[in-house]
Amino acid sequence: MAGAALVAHGGGPTAVLNASLLGVVEEAREHKQISALYGAKFGISGILEQNFVDLLQQSDETLLSAALTPSSALGTSRREVTEQDLDRVLAIFRAHGVRYFFYNGGNGTMGTAGQIQALARRKGQQLEVVGIPKTIDNDLLATDHAPGYPSAARFFALAARDIGADNLALPGQVEFLEVLGRNVGWLAAATSLARRDADDAPHLIYLPETPLPQEQLLDDVQRVFDRLGRCVVAVCEGQLDEHGEAFGADVRTGSRGSLAMNLGHRLARLITERLNIRARSEKPGLLGRVSSLCIADADWSEARLCGARAVAAAVAGHGGNMVTLRRDENSPEYRIDTALAPLEEVALRERHFPAEWRNAEGNGILPEFQNYVLPLVGEIAPLAQIQDIPVAKRSL
Amino acid sequence: MAGAALVAHGGGPTAVLNASLLGVVEEAREHKQISALYGAKFGISGILEQNFVDLLQQSDETLLSAALTPSSALGTSRREVTEQDLDRVLAIFRAHGVRYFFYNGGNGTMGTAGQIQALARRKGQQLEVVGIPKTIDNDLLATDHAPGYPSAARFFALAARDIGADNLALPGQVEFLEVLGRNVGWLAAATSLARRDADDAPHLIYLPETPLPQEQLLDDVQRVFDRLGRCVVAVCEGQLDEHGEAFGADVRTGSRGSLAMNLGHRLARLITERLNIRARSEKPGLLGRVSSLCIADADWSEARLCGARAVAAAVAGHGGNMVTLRRDENSPEYRIDTALAPLEEVALRERHFPAEWRNAEGNGILPEFQNYVLPLVGEIAPLAQIQDIPVAKRSL
Repeated sequence: MAGAALVAHGGGPTAVLNASLLGVVEEAREHKQISALYGAKFGISGILEQNFVDLLQQSDETLLSAALTPSSALGTSRREVTEQDLDRVLAIFRAHGVRYFFYNGGNGTMGTAGQIQALARRKGQQLEVVGIPKTIDNDLLATDHAPGYPSAARFFALAARDIGADNLALPGQVEFLEVLGRNVGWLAAATSLARRDADDAPHLIYLPETPLPQEQLLDDVQRVFDRLGRCVVAVCEGQLDEHGEAFGADVRTGSRGSLAMNLGHRLARLITERLNIRARSEKPGLLGRVSSLCIADADWSEARLCGARAVAAAVAGHGGNMVTLRRDENSPEYRIDTALAPLEEVALRERHFPAEWRNAEGNGILPEFQNYVLPLVGEIAPLAQIQDIPVAKRSL
Repeated sequence: MAGAALVAHGGGPTAVLNASLLGVVEEAREHKQISALYGAKFGISGILEQNFVDLLQQSDETLLSAALTPSSALGTSRREVTEQDLDRVLAIFRAHGVRYFFYNGGNGTMGTAGQIQALARRKGQQLEVVGIPKTIDNDLLATDHAPGYPSAARFFALAARDIGADNLALPGQVEFLEVLGRNVGWLAAATSLARRDADDAPHLIYLPETPLPQEQLLDDVQRVFDRLGRCVVAVCEGQLDEHGEAFGADVRTGSRGSLAMNLGHRLARLITERLNIRARSEKPGLLGRVSSLCIADADWSEARLCGARAVAAAVAGHGGNMVTLRRDENSPEYRIDTALAPLEEVALRERHFPAEWRNAEGNGILPEFQNYVLPLVGEIAPLAQIQDIPVAKRSL
């Protein structure tokens, strides 16, 4: 089945989205069934406006440079799709002879991809829709992990280590590191990679899968501070208390649930007001998903691989699926291959952080998680220290 | 004058404070007048508690590893010093035979260094106190710039570029990047290095040296958003409005003036409420001063140089001074040497960002500043883009 192919991005940018784009273009060049490859500018909006860029006419150098660049070279969108939009998408695909559609995004994007595939089949329109996984949240089902997560996880793990070094050098205060994540704590959990011993930051890690009682937070922080005279806390932007409230933070409601917009700040104020300890909060925010300083090696290669495998799957007639990453559990070293999962299986569903990887107190992460995450993120080396060679005190 | 030497850190950590420590140790080894070299743990607090570490017994490898590590390997302090403390410091110096004291910090630290030097002279106690400059704020007088500033400036310039790429890929919203800086805008101004053309982020840059009228902010943002459909704003944590208020942000008063603790967030809310544009804010905060991912090359070398020159100055009997960086204005390429400035000249005084490097509207930075800052920070390369090779629209 020869025809044109189209690739689009959905949802928030990541550090490796453009590596997947490179993979799509490279693989598309290998298949004579693909007569043209278009990129939709700004996701579904670009499709509806026929705002396409020709990807087969890009130079190798351009594609590789873009692939090493964070964010989305095509542009992306959070636009909600209506029934009417779906009809128009198929009409546009017919007009351009688009037979292959690659939609690179998270579980919302996979929902739309599934709707487009289903409608095409109902109408008898020839179309193979294949999803390319992407989410910094790592909340996609059916895949070992999703491209974009490892780089963001590395960013926040390094941030926790470096802010921990600051807190160690200038103690006497509590630092909240607000981590991306409304509903799932995979990124916050990755800050545990910064810990080598019991005194290392982050001393407390909370995940939004579980409500955090305000009194538990106060008790936990007080206990760490009493012991060390300092404390670093990793907490997700979407953390709620035992009443389902955001600790008095501002809340914005969006398409994917509500988001506490200044949570870390509110928690820092709470600590100061209730425990009388100096406290502040840092919120790298979007920088955590697009920092050019922090692209995890494995993430980049796997993102590229997922792009390529999506093309191969579509050409083989396996539309209606998302590419998944499958870890070889029998291999002593980390080894990844891809597989396919039906779009309906991943659409609009969220994979929570497993309860068995959290400690009983609900304020820390167990080592089992590190076995999972370390190969993705890479080692977070402890920072160098000078040797503690003391000088004897003298009487004055 | 043979005797022991002591080095201490004051104020907030930076990415290159440990490079200055390396410079101190390396140079101290070269002078037989220096019989021992101690490091005070946690700044002035460590001096008062005789909490010293032996620095001449550290291995080369340890010192170099630590020097490549952000934060403060000795630990630092913000403790205010009393008259009684000063007497005790001198008594402790006598007890340990300390004849040379190197105090590495900002203008507050230089104030204390000057007090210690003055008291020693009044008492006839042999002591050479030399300041080593350090501040991410770049607000020290008498020096071309201060170690620590270039690395933090690079961090925020890269953050502005990367967040700009995110905003470009997913437009329709306003992003505030909250930059460190209570009273001076040197760091915020450095985000202008991310701009290559008129449409690049950050589109608006405000500095706390000047009040920002709320209506100006709203007008400026609306104008950029109308033109581009997106907007990135760099603003300092200490920015105030025309009434001297922090736009409704929480304010904490500390030893160095007041600090608006959630300013970027308040500004984002203001934009949403008044202009009905989706807005958010990112606050990398302390990560901007200690990120291991962002140590500017020139900064590291110069920090090391300042440490070494402080030792040489003290041994030569030039106590009572701070080492300064002096740029060779006659050299076509960037060339730095050091000089000395009296501690009283820099103590407790602040160097503001020059008004002549700001645009008339007060929302941007002129190219003259880039000539100053580029050699310190290094180039901020524009991110790669794919080529805009459009595909013709077809009738449906």
